[in-house]
Amino acid sequence: MKSEKPSLFTCLSPALLSLYDIRDSIVVIIDVLRATSTIATALHNKAHAVVPVDSVAECIRLGAQMAAVTAGERDGKVAEGLQYGNSPFEYPESFIGGKTLVLTTTNGTKLLHMALARDANQIITGSFANLSAVCEYLLSENKPVLLGCAAWKDRVNLEDTLFAGAVIDRIGDHFHRHCDASKMAHQLYREAKPDLFAYMKSNEASHYLRLSSFGLEEDIRHCLTEDTAPVLPLYKEGKLIAG
Amino acid sequence: MKSEKPSLFTCLSPALLSLYDIRDSIVVIIDVLRATSTIATALHNKAHAVVPVDSVAECIRLGAQMAAVTAGERDGKVAEGLQYGNSPFEYPESFIGGKTLVLTTTNGTKLLHMALARDANQIITGSFANLSAVCEYLLSENKPVLLGCAAWKDRVNLEDTLFAGAVIDRIGDHFHRHCDASKMAHQLYREAKPDLFAYMKSNEASHYLRLSSFGLEEDIRHCLTEDTAPVLPLYKEGKLIAG
Repeated sequence: MKSEKPSLFTCLSPALLSLYDIRDSIVVIIDVLRATSTIATALHNKAHAVVPVDSVAECIRLGAQMAAVTAGERDGKVAEGLQYGNSPFEYPESFIGGKTLVLTTTNGTKLLHMALARDANQIITGSFANLSAVCEYLLSENKPVLLGCAAWKDRVNLEDTLFAGAVIDRIGDHFHRHCDASKMAHQLYREAKPDLFAYMKSNEASHYLRLSSFGLEEDIRHCLTEDTAPVLPLYKEGKLIAG
Repeated sequence: MKSEKPSLFTCLSPALLSLYDIRDSIVVIIDVLRATSTIATALHNKAHAVVPVDSVAECIRLGAQMAAVTAGERDGKVAEGLQYGNSPFEYPESFIGGKTLVLTTTNGTKLLHMALARDANQIITGSFANLSAVCEYLLSENKPVLLGCAAWKDRVNLEDTLFAGAVIDRIGDHFHRHCDASKMAHQLYREAKPDLFAYMKSNEASHYLRLSSFGLEEDIRHCLTEDTAPVLPLYKEGKLIAG
């Protein structure tokens, strides 16, 4: 008996999430530059948990309540009242091991909360840093998948789309993909695959320009490197923990 | 003195239109399969005007009031109460010359009305059938441009994105494009350019599958052919007329 493949959709912006019924789906929150890369890095380096919040005020409040490390940036600098920034390089095991990190991000956290509100079956986070772990998990669960790009203030962005394409390139054949956005993401990734950094740079991706203007080229390069933090961040009861 | 280039943005779905301020912009409504291809064809074949409406009932009402030809499809068939379908092949000059066509479409008309409601500076329609005419007009006007993909029930689609990419491929250098969606559309078009039909087919674009299941492969092929209907449809007072 031929088993039916589960579906896979790619949602290029949080503003499109309402088009998809995700109640049976694993939603992969994708915010490559840099929230979900940093989440994977911190959890891989044995952070106890990462709590994503959407405002600096909430970050400060929860950080105090949980005796946690607080982190977040606004305009490329550590936000006032917080301790650390958004760079994965700030979270080696020697610093973050055993600690809880409360991280304020805008686009990724917004999408995660929207997926929660729409009763996603499961929520995980994905980035090139944990590409293989995400793919292995999606294959093992064999459930419908929604690849959710956090984008930038609802505008489609290149790096999150490329990550969706990378997942499809690896495991797309195991899913039904009646979804042009998935096909577009896959085509773009195939073209970019030989050198993601060069592709982002030559295309003058908006986020490349923004971060490189803050001197963060090395962050970009690191966040486009596969499997530097092989861990699966699973969202449970308000926290991301290593699955 | 260096003159400042106007901006160009690509909006991949009507659900993203609210992210853009279009009050100074020419909005290009793109609904390649098949509304804007048929609009160009009818106007090129000397239709007096094309009136886009969003429901069958409104099409019947206006058609009677204006003594016009009424057209529109639902599920690949002429909708009940209307006279003709959505295929550009139905509108040769011998039939449509001098007549007004009231055409009901869902995605394209919805986006056009949204652009009107958001006070677009000008609205035109674009398709491969009139690619050169659109590009020449945008160059001559030298105003900000929003390439608006009608998509499919708000879901991003391949063919409208490819047309946005085609415009960018031709005239993108004359505009500022700080817009990842434009870059993605351009990359996809560059890859597809040698054979758009083969690209749509090999990628199993959702609209390719839908229309080909109705036996409309020739329509798709025609709608992906450049400059079969060199005319500029300009929206004025509820009608599209040849500009």
